[in-house]
Amino acid sequence: MRQVHFVAFLQAQNCTTIPAAWRHPDARTDSYSPDYYQHIARVLEEGKFDVGFFDDRLAMPDMYRGDHAHTVENGIRCVKLDATTCLMTMAAASKHLGLGATYSTTYYDPFHVARVFQTIDLMTKGRAAWNCVTSVNDNEARNMGRGDSAMEHDLRYDRADEFMEIVLGHWDSWDDDAIVVDKENNLYAHPDKVRRIDYKGEFLSSRGPFTVPRSAQGHPVVMQAGMSGRGQKFAARWGELLFVAYRDIAVGRKMYKSQKDATAALGRNPDHMKICSLFYPMVAATRAEAEDRKAAYDKLPNDIDQLSLLSEALNFDFATKGMDEPFSDEEIAGINGMQSMRDRVIQAGYKNPTVRDFMRVTGRGLLHEAWVGSPTDIADMIEEWWSGPEPACDGFVVGPTHQPGCFEDFVRLVVPELQKRGIYRKDYSGPTLRDHLGLQRPDIGALRNAAAE
Amino acid sequence: MRQVHFVAFLQAQNCTTIPAAWRHPDARTDSYSPDYYQHIARVLEEGKFDVGFFDDRLAMPDMYRGDHAHTVENGIRCVKLDATTCLMTMAAASKHLGLGATYSTTYYDPFHVARVFQTIDLMTKGRAAWNCVTSVNDNEARNMGRGDSAMEHDLRYDRADEFMEIVLGHWDSWDDDAIVVDKENNLYAHPDKVRRIDYKGEFLSSRGPFTVPRSAQGHPVVMQAGMSGRGQKFAARWGELLFVAYRDIAVGRKMYKSQKDATAALGRNPDHMKICSLFYPMVAATRAEAEDRKAAYDKLPNDIDQLSLLSEALNFDFATKGMDEPFSDEEIAGINGMQSMRDRVIQAGYKNPTVRDFMRVTGRGLLHEAWVGSPTDIADMIEEWWSGPEPACDGFVVGPTHQPGCFEDFVRLVVPELQKRGIYRKDYSGPTLRDHLGLQRPDIGALRNAAAE
Repeated sequence: MRQVHFVAFLQAQNCTTIPAAWRHPDARTDSYSPDYYQHIARVLEEGKFDVGFFDDRLAMPDMYRGDHAHTVENGIRCVKLDATTCLMTMAAASKHLGLGATYSTTYYDPFHVARVFQTIDLMTKGRAAWNCVTSVNDNEARNMGRGDSAMEHDLRYDRADEFMEIVLGHWDSWDDDAIVVDKENNLYAHPDKVRRIDYKGEFLSSRGPFTVPRSAQGHPVVMQAGMSGRGQKFAARWGELLFVAYRDIAVGRKMYKSQKDATAALGRNPDHMKICSLFYPMVAATRAEAEDRKAAYDKLPNDIDQLSLLSEALNFDFATKGMDEPFSDEEIAGINGMQSMRDRVIQAGYKNPTVRDFMRVTGRGLLHEAWVGSPTDIADMIEEWWSGPEPACDGFVVGPTHQPGCFEDFVRLVVPELQKRGIYRKDYSGPTLRDHLGLQRPDIGALRNAAAE
Repeated sequence: MRQVHFVAFLQAQNCTTIPAAWRHPDARTDSYSPDYYQHIARVLEEGKFDVGFFDDRLAMPDMYRGDHAHTVENGIRCVKLDATTCLMTMAAASKHLGLGATYSTTYYDPFHVARVFQTIDLMTKGRAAWNCVTSVNDNEARNMGRGDSAMEHDLRYDRADEFMEIVLGHWDSWDDDAIVVDKENNLYAHPDKVRRIDYKGEFLSSRGPFTVPRSAQGHPVVMQAGMSGRGQKFAARWGELLFVAYRDIAVGRKMYKSQKDATAALGRNPDHMKICSLFYPMVAATRAEAEDRKAAYDKLPNDIDQLSLLSEALNFDFATKGMDEPFSDEEIAGINGMQSMRDRVIQAGYKNPTVRDFMRVTGRGLLHEAWVGSPTDIADMIEEWWSGPEPACDGFVVGPTHQPGCFEDFVRLVVPELQKRGIYRKDYSGPTLRDHLGLQRPDIGALRNAAAE
């Protein structure tokens, strides 16, 4: 039976995606301690979440005014820990919860990424996911010693395709029955069941043989976000779990279908890809109480939260423009950051948007995509998006307003309502993340072969 | 009071440093499961070890004959997991044990290394160590997509110096009292207590600001191995915990003094560097039983274990030479792998050694540096090396013949004897690795300032 899937959207940082989160009265502020991450893991596992996953950024925001003083002072994602280490901290406090993290295809080496995530998959007995992204920020390039600016948009994706060939190639290097460990006859593993990949692309190369065998679920689940045209194509080819942020249910239904169709067109079974759309729950026992909470929350952010994060997302210093000064056509065309965000502003009717237009339309840094209401309100919205002949998604990415309280409220109030309706698991059906997601254990070469034209 | 220090020499692989280890009748063979690493962590913590640390290699051995079939079949380090992930697995099963891992300065980015290890230090509440090495193998270069051959020896170290400037610079970027978390007044951290490093070297650059604050012990302990002339100089400048393999006690006394003198000459307090020398314990209730065990163990290795690992260590295919064919002067000069190993063979009187001479002198792949005896025999040797006006070391790197049995024997038999003699802790005196090692919490800039000429 089809079930709703839940992905918790986590940040190994001092706030959630919303900088104001740390200013919330109930927010835990020890986000650089293991106890913080283990608390969250226990809550998510109690709520039978499919997976908690961390985003990543290899720099703190300082595009705005070219300086980090405002970032540190306002606590705008200024602490950013290594996500895989935080994952392993959560692994220690959970038994079933899936564990995903982002590592960038722009700055890491594919051999390293393949090894880290396959090792996590072994050490968690098949609970790992890798969220593969391309990176957009100049300040990341500077920290990583790659000159002063990030790579051009489509080029990043071409390189990312090669990256996937290498990572998945390595993950398929050991047959499932390669290891024997026959001490008497001195046969550790079958030499013909371990292969090199000998990959040489335009941007990347790696030889092998890979040094990590397959895991309980074969290899980590491949997560992918990216809603630009090139990003959708990339996701159709490689993604097993997709993170999307559909604007409304109508757009969601259309884009969900188009993504699944694009996936089928590449010869992949579209059921082998689950699409989860982002929302931020603001739930309380009654709708009125939830609305009060929302009103209180909306007082926490400030303008600089927004301006700083817009500057990062679009890789453009918003302090160089007046609040009501329109962007020129050249400036719009020259934005090489998250193009789906830029396009959203233009599609909203602003051909030459001002700074204020960008703030209003994107809601960047604010609690913008909140679903506010009682447990039944939220469950109704979930069911509406997820069910029927034309669903808008297979599940949801749950973004927290603050931690861990937001997840605690969701697990205490919304999860039982969904369980009562029979659309959400009462317990995990198996030990691996693929079990939770209803994804098959991949055969050797499954993703690479399906995707090859 | 001065105490003996113990470092456990771990490998995230299917055997110990000795390939034959997996063939030992008592060896656990599930080295790709979390249970394996957690078992070892519990044993080491019971024995009050200072730290368990993992070596690393970004390829399986296949220099020999240019192929990996023999590696996989004989189980010669063919499985090699990501070490930091295994560390975090061990962290979950321990409370005090120090946790170290190797990440290569040749193949990783300093910003990444700084972030991963500082995060581990936070997530373990101050138990982390980073073993910084330079990498020697062509097969690693090929896996990491860096062409077909490794970097030249001294150049690797020049680059490594820059790498350290960046890593330690980032670790010093947040003052200890930078974070405030004042929700009411919207002050997350003091903007003037978080700095960029703006480092631009000949090989490497990184800007900052770093995104990980300081930890309970300030930052991870810097481990270092490397006994070549250039390696000793590098260690004098940066090392806090040194891994050495002194050939005998006379050599040890001389080299220990010379390393400490070199450290003092750079303006560092030599007590802020602990030197641990490698041995492999083969202990049993009686000396006769230990000798029997040694004789049984010596039947486990085979020639191909040795030839494969010699080829890796020296970055030279030993299959290209007959067993009794001498190396020419040019071949000897051209070896760009571990030069300290090559030099040891030459210093042993073989100007033009044969393959067999290399095997005999280095004992590569064999149980070569074993200390065989009863608990009092082993404790006597430890005390002899460690005590007196001219010690040969501050402690020891304990290499396991097989896992976890070798550590279990050591903890059960040798540790109580040392505790009885009053030279080894009965319990941990504090929570951090620096507490165990008797190293001071580093001031901001301590290592970099002392080392700057």
